[in-house]
Amino acid sequence: MTIRAVVIGAGGYSGAELVGLLLAHPATSIVGLFASAKRDGVNQPALFSDSFGRFRGRLDLPVRATSVPDVLALKPDVVFLATPHEASVELARALAAPGGPVVLDLSAAFRLKDPALYPKHYGFEHPDAGLLDRAVYGLPELHRATLATAMLIAVPGCYPTSAILALAPLARAGAIARRADGRLTRPIVDSTSGVSGAGRGLNLRSLFCEVHQQPYGVLSHRHQPEIDAYAGVPTVFTPHLGPYERGILSTIHVELAAGWSEARVRETLAGAYAEEPFVRLCRAGVWPSVADVRGTNFCDLACATDDAWGHLILVSAIDNLVKGAAGQAVQCMNIRFGLGETTGLLPAEKA
Amino acid sequence: MTIRAVVIGAGGYSGAELVGLLLAHPATSIVGLFASAKRDGVNQPALFSDSFGRFRGRLDLPVRATSVPDVLALKPDVVFLATPHEASVELARALAAPGGPVVLDLSAAFRLKDPALYPKHYGFEHPDAGLLDRAVYGLPELHRATLATAMLIAVPGCYPTSAILALAPLARAGAIARRADGRLTRPIVDSTSGVSGAGRGLNLRSLFCEVHQQPYGVLSHRHQPEIDAYAGVPTVFTPHLGPYERGILSTIHVELAAGWSEARVRETLAGAYAEEPFVRLCRAGVWPSVADVRGTNFCDLACATDDAWGHLILVSAIDNLVKGAAGQAVQCMNIRFGLGETTGLLPAEKA
Amino acid sequence: MTIRAVVIGAGGYSGAELVGLLLAHPATSIVGLFASAKRDGVNQPALFSDSFGRFRGRLDLPVRATSVPDVLALKPDVVFLATPHEASVELARALAAPGGPVVLDLSAAFRLKDPALYPKHYGFEHPDAGLLDRAVYGLPELHRATLATAMLIAVPGCYPTSAILALAPLARAGAIARRADGRLTRPIVDSTSGVSGAGRGLNLRSLFCEVHQQPYGVLSHRHQPEIDAYAGVPTVFTPHLGPYERGILSTIHVELAAGWSEARVRETLAGAYAEEPFVRLCRAGVWPSVADVRGTNFCDLACATDDAWGHLILVSAIDNLVKGAAGQAVQCMNIRFGLGETTGLLPAEKA
Amino acid sequence: MTIRAVVIGAGGYSGAELVGLLLAHPATSIVGLFASAKRDGVNQPALFSDSFGRFRGRLDLPVRATSVPDVLALKPDVVFLATPHEASVELARALAAPGGPVVLDLSAAFRLKDPALYPKHYGFEHPDAGLLDRAVYGLPELHRATLATAMLIAVPGCYPTSAILALAPLARAGAIARRADGRLTRPIVDSTSGVSGAGRGLNLRSLFCEVHQQPYGVLSHRHQPEIDAYAGVPTVFTPHLGPYERGILSTIHVELAAGWSEARVRETLAGAYAEEPFVRLCRAGVWPSVADVRGTNFCDLACATDDAWGHLILVSAIDNLVKGAAGQAVQCMNIRFGLGETTGLLPAEKA
Repeated sequence: MTIRAVVIGAGGYSGAELVGLLLAHPATSIVGLFASAKRDGVNQPALFSDSFGRFRGRLDLPVRATSVPDVLALKPDVVFLATPHEASVELARALAAPGGPVVLDLSAAFRLKDPALYPKHYGFEHPDAGLLDRAVYGLPELHRATLATAMLIAVPGCYPTSAILALAPLARAGAIARRADGRLTRPIVDSTSGVSGAGRGLNLRSLFCEVHQQPYGVLSHRHQPEIDAYAGVPTVFTPHLGPYERGILSTIHVELAAGWSEARVRETLAGAYAEEPFVRLCRAGVWPSVADVRGTNFCDLACATDDAWGHLILVSAIDNLVKGAAGQAVQCMNIRFGLGETTGLLPAEKA
Repeated sequence: MTIRAVVIGAGGYSGAELVGLLLAHPATSIVGLFASAKRDGVNQPALFSDSFGRFRGRLDLPVRATSVPDVLALKPDVVFLATPHEASVELARALAAPGGPVVLDLSAAFRLKDPALYPKHYGFEHPDAGLLDRAVYGLPELHRATLATAMLIAVPGCYPTSAILALAPLARAGAIARRADGRLTRPIVDSTSGVSGAGRGLNLRSLFCEVHQQPYGVLSHRHQPEIDAYAGVPTVFTPHLGPYERGILSTIHVELAAGWSEARVRETLAGAYAEEPFVRLCRAGVWPSVADVRGTNFCDLACATDDAWGHLILVSAIDNLVKGAAGQAVQCMNIRFGLGETTGLLPAEKA
Repeated sequence: MTIRAVVIGAGGYSGAELVGLLLAHPATSIVGLFASAKRDGVNQPALFSDSFGRFRGRLDLPVRATSVPDVLALKPDVVFLATPHEASVELARALAAPGGPVVLDLSAAFRLKDPALYPKHYGFEHPDAGLLDRAVYGLPELHRATLATAMLIAVPGCYPTSAILALAPLARAGAIARRADGRLTRPIVDSTSGVSGAGRGLNLRSLFCEVHQQPYGVLSHRHQPEIDAYAGVPTVFTPHLGPYERGILSTIHVELAAGWSEARVRETLAGAYAEEPFVRLCRAGVWPSVADVRGTNFCDLACATDDAWGHLILVSAIDNLVKGAAGQAVQCMNIRFGLGETTGLLPAEKA
Repeated sequence: MTIRAVVIGAGGYSGAELVGLLLAHPATSIVGLFASAKRDGVNQPALFSDSFGRFRGRLDLPVRATSVPDVLALKPDVVFLATPHEASVELARALAAPGGPVVLDLSAAFRLKDPALYPKHYGFEHPDAGLLDRAVYGLPELHRATLATAMLIAVPGCYPTSAILALAPLARAGAIARRADGRLTRPIVDSTSGVSGAGRGLNLRSLFCEVHQQPYGVLSHRHQPEIDAYAGVPTVFTPHLGPYERGILSTIHVELAAGWSEARVRETLAGAYAEEPFVRLCRAGVWPSVADVRGTNFCDLACATDDAWGHLILVSAIDNLVKGAAGQAVQCMNIRFGLGETTGLLPAEKA
């Protein structure tokens, strides 16, 4: 089988990462690359490999201006949208139709089920509650079964992936303490991301000489409702930028419910992820590092508890462009097309 | 007045930072440099400027093997110990005598008042409870008055400085919520430090190609009891290493007591630091960055609250080698010798 | 004496570096800050310290839109132009008049004496050959005497400073071999600069995730004619960008004339720079590093020869924003105003 | 076919890179990992994945102390030596025997044909001139044919690979000018390498806070004779360290022989590399960047000439750990075992 793939938004970091993964994927063929709408001040070069020199001689396709008929004329089996969320809304509505390609959207346009959240967190009225409803949130560790038949997959955000994978199994198992008022206590999620997470736009704060360890979006980041929706517990999420290229490290604090020890936490996580090819639980005393997951689709997880206080510390690390974007999209595609889930993401098993 | 200064431990990063500050200080004269005990595998060059090329032609003193009589023969007014804590214990006992020099110790040897904490957190029995008792913890913003007459000053650790300056005024003012059992809720302190904080020792984890965003010392870092002792509240402290040279950013979460709003927090911090030359409170919406404090003695502070939950986020940034070590030591020296507190740390006022 | 200083172009990296140096300078008072023309896509914040957070609480002046009458109304003794060269041409013509302030221009607008070079290398016809002629090239090590009375000082470029300081004494002494046709052989200058050298403009190539070791401007860089004009020999200059913030390292290859050995080269450089406060000649076997000059006004120099081939290797290191821009401007100002040349650049001598 | 592979020296950066490539290689099976002799101060963890966390869960083999019988007991088809050159000499002599495994040595132990060069450049008498003579220098672009039957392959050094690929076709074609005395003029090779090139040993100069742009080994680097031996022309080679993890950029200056223009240079390089899968010639105006070759086995090449002076500038970029070490070793292995040359280094062709 060869899956005919189109990437829209191939001029950004997630789009280019996706192109690299698809090139190496044994069952896909990239049949077309399209640009997001032209960004202010950035001239899109004619050839993809002019924009990203590492593809020189490996993929010399042009990057074309996006047009739905032009995309459909390529008869794609799958279309990846690495586009801003407004563009994704329009493109998904045009493309994700019966008989059309499977659409994998890397933006936030279809991640939240509740249309009411969009105006507040994303600044626009979502025009298609029906499509929102049919979209599947593409975190395989949570939604593998429904992904197998999805026509529109909302690939999770980078920060949410790092937080949800740590928290969801524990929230589901009742590990999180409740307050006197009956509400769950809120885990604290302090995350640091490399600069590629800010995208390839021309912002002063992404200049080499401006970047340094600093929080941003405090109490107001767009990923907060996404984390809360899928972690199974409301959280306090604070993102930071770090002076490096790629990778997210999240340090998460949880107030444990009575009866929860480090051993039980570890057992719960181990149980949840025993069969997962891309979640690695570190043994006690070993802590995830961005260095260990760079360029991979792994999420590394570790935990420790202060039993006297019932305090749990969880740490997770992912590559924001791989497990936090393009790699997760490929993992979803593999599931959707019935391929081995690690195809193109890990070496094939050898005879 | 010229203060005759000696630096012991001039081969490390804090020691060298101190030398740079003392060179620029209008009222001090560096009369001698001494090495910590020779470290395995590191040959101490004969001249200080061979070890730190940036001092070439500016300070070509030799770095001598430490000997108490040799130090005293220089008739120093002040001796800085940028030495490991075991060495500091011995040197301070020998030097901090009546009629002797003022001793400023940058190690942890005299920071904790309770001798019982040393075996657990530092792995040695403290041999001199009396000297412990007489030592003054050198955080000017808390202990300015007692510093003025101290003979032995325990210069605070880098992480503690960043956490205590944020928390102490709030703890003192009763801003921190109590649990049902009456104990204070524990603020969460997630800190990231540049690599210079790990010192100049030859450790695999300090190699350029090994460093990346990663926690360490989780639930077991030596700075935990120091933070708790001076912040006025027990905390949960988790240090991380980041891939950069210098600077600490601490993100701190506090459960607020009833009646505490963002305005009141801000007013409390503003009141505490209105006259402080080295604490800068950011206005709402501006967050500290390591870039803004690098190479300075400033601590930048910011805050925001989620009033519905009574949740406060504090962020502080310092340069771990300056406000977190050498600059703070100079600030203490200025107080102790009756100089203007910012001498050598900020430009002099102009006519 | 207090020198009233104005900085135009305070929103760029050189301008901000200059502000920092002037703040610390005991004899200057910053009386006004002005912006270059508004750059596309960059909103100039109202306060200088909003644009560069490290100045928070230290200099909270507004950055005003540039207007010559507004500048003159401040009665400045000195005006620094950290502006693009087209703007500098206009501003210098308006400001550098008899009875007016001393003008120090950090752009290339007045560095070349020959107006004919401007169209080719800078893309514009120079409108004021007379002013060009009166401008003094501000390399103190070469032109100290004429700087003392200059009304317009063209502060050298960063790459040229690193190359000229290495080559000029040797070219003057006849150390450079001639070709069979009588022309001097051309030294090869391979330089690597940190990213701040590219300025604060919003260019894709200055984004954190785009920068890496790479040449640019090969055989066509604008600094080539400037180097050739003042080094005393035509050169082959190739600039590179390196993934770091500040500093230039130049490695220079010279074919030596007959009779020139390493000893004679070293003696010539030592003679030229014996009394220079900001040029440090490394002893044999020690090589300059960007780490040693960061944040300083020093130029570190080293040399070695392959005597069998008459091949000389010179290496120089500077901080592109200090000795390559703002520090050199202050050094020139000190000379021009009869102050000690190191004032504000090195600690004052102590009693 | 499955090739049974052993890696000796799996605790270093080249060794670990090799392990990663072999894991992903469809035709190899890693049957054993061995350590170089224990390095001072570095405790070799028991498991390879403890030493390099990125292999956690992917390859949890132990790293054993090296013993020739233990290696041979594994019946390897190929043994990679990522060991210091002294160790490689001994291991190659023991292993590279008729009927034994193919040995690929990544050290310098067998790169030079002339035993007389070893004492001077490597500090030891080479004990086995016969084996030196039988070893094949593993640069496929030069020696593909002889590699096909080699029993001992000396994988080229990183700097030499970057220099030789640029120079060899031109030297062979007579592009390099001669001096009046008939000797070839010497090309100048100025190279900058990332820190991984210095290896994983505990050296002060490899610490994160010590690394910066700086030359080293000036006129005395061990790679000089290797470059000269295979480039076809003597050179002047000056290595530099840059503050980044991996990649080498070499800027090379050549005095062209009469009759050589940019077009002819480009044609010569294009001709030499038209069929080479891992050499990419950039079109005019595009210059190699370390960013474009990181993590790949490519060598990017570019050129420009100053025709008035007959001056050629060549620039090449490689990843020092891939095309400069482990990737090149795998490329050689592929040739030696009759596999497609890009196997495991580029995605397989798709149907």
